[in-house]
Amino acid sequence: MPKIDLDAIAPNNTTGYPAEHAGPVRERWKRRLGPVAGLTDFGASHVVLKPGAWSSQRHWHDGEDEMLVMLAGEAVLIEDADGPEGGRTIIRPGDICAWPKGSTNGHHLINESSQDCVFVAIGGGVCTGGGYSDIDMLFDAQGRYLHRDGTPYEA
Amino acid sequence: MPKIDLDAIAPNNTTGYPAEHAGPVRERWKRRLGPVAGLTDFGASHVVLKPGAWSSQRHWHDGEDEMLVMLAGEAVLIEDADGPEGGRTIIRPGDICAWPKGSTNGHHLINESSQDCVFVAIGGGVCTGGGYSDIDMLFDAQGRYLHRDGTPYEA
Repeated sequence: MPKIDLDAIAPNNTTGYPAEHAGPVRERWKRRLGPVAGLTDFGASHVVLKPGAWSSQRHWHDGEDEMLVMLAGEAVLIEDADGPEGGRTIIRPGDICAWPKGSTNGHHLINESSQDCVFVAIGGGVCTGGGYSDIDMLFDAQGRYLHRDGTPYEA
Repeated sequence: MPKIDLDAIAPNNTTGYPAEHAGPVRERWKRRLGPVAGLTDFGASHVVLKPGAWSSQRHWHDGEDEMLVMLAGEAVLIEDADGPEGGRTIIRPGDICAWPKGSTNGHHLINESSQDCVFVAIGGGVCTGGGYSDIDMLFDAQGRYLHRDGTPYEA
């Protein structure tokens, strides 16, 4: 069924983040598309951010390219304040963002509006780890969350 | 620059198709995103189909997953008439289509409306060849166009 029946996929708001970092993504409702569509060459998710929700903690990937296609509503892309974009960029329907692997200018989207925002997120490559810009956390090649000194978060 | 400046990318309507099969895609205006955005783990293009234009000849890939995110306008997804979707599916903004590699139910989109339609196309995997449903053509792992009997099209 090439046209994906989004209504048939239950949205999921779980996160693997440690409890102390999970709050901002509790109203991120994700539908993973790859498993239902049979895609294996890249990952894709349909994501709804409720007002106030974050797409993730501000992060980067060392080994995976990411892309986002905005479908509805509005969000603010946050990056390093001293980066080339100056830290805040409004993202609207039809806008496309791309984050090549290895750039350590972390990113996330925050829905600062009073309406849902909706986007598709695409990811490729191989997980080799990555970092978080604003919190004492990183992830390793196994996707485990560690403090920056390498000690694991409690499971 | 994570938010891609689409206006800074010149749209391109060229095709490698043999001349006798190129007509329907002449008003397909494509902006390749990977090169400007530094993406290498998957390919992505922003595509505008003018009224009447086709996304491609109806085709499939043996080794590459494909996905499409519809942004504006409307198009008709065409597949095998005796396939599970019955041959014609209207695709509207917010719709997402996925075509896992290896399915030989060929697909393309036709803009039968009087307005432009706009989508993002994503592809991953490795080119190992593929086929065309409605014409005497296939493509090989090098992306060359051949007749179904294996003879090449004239360069």
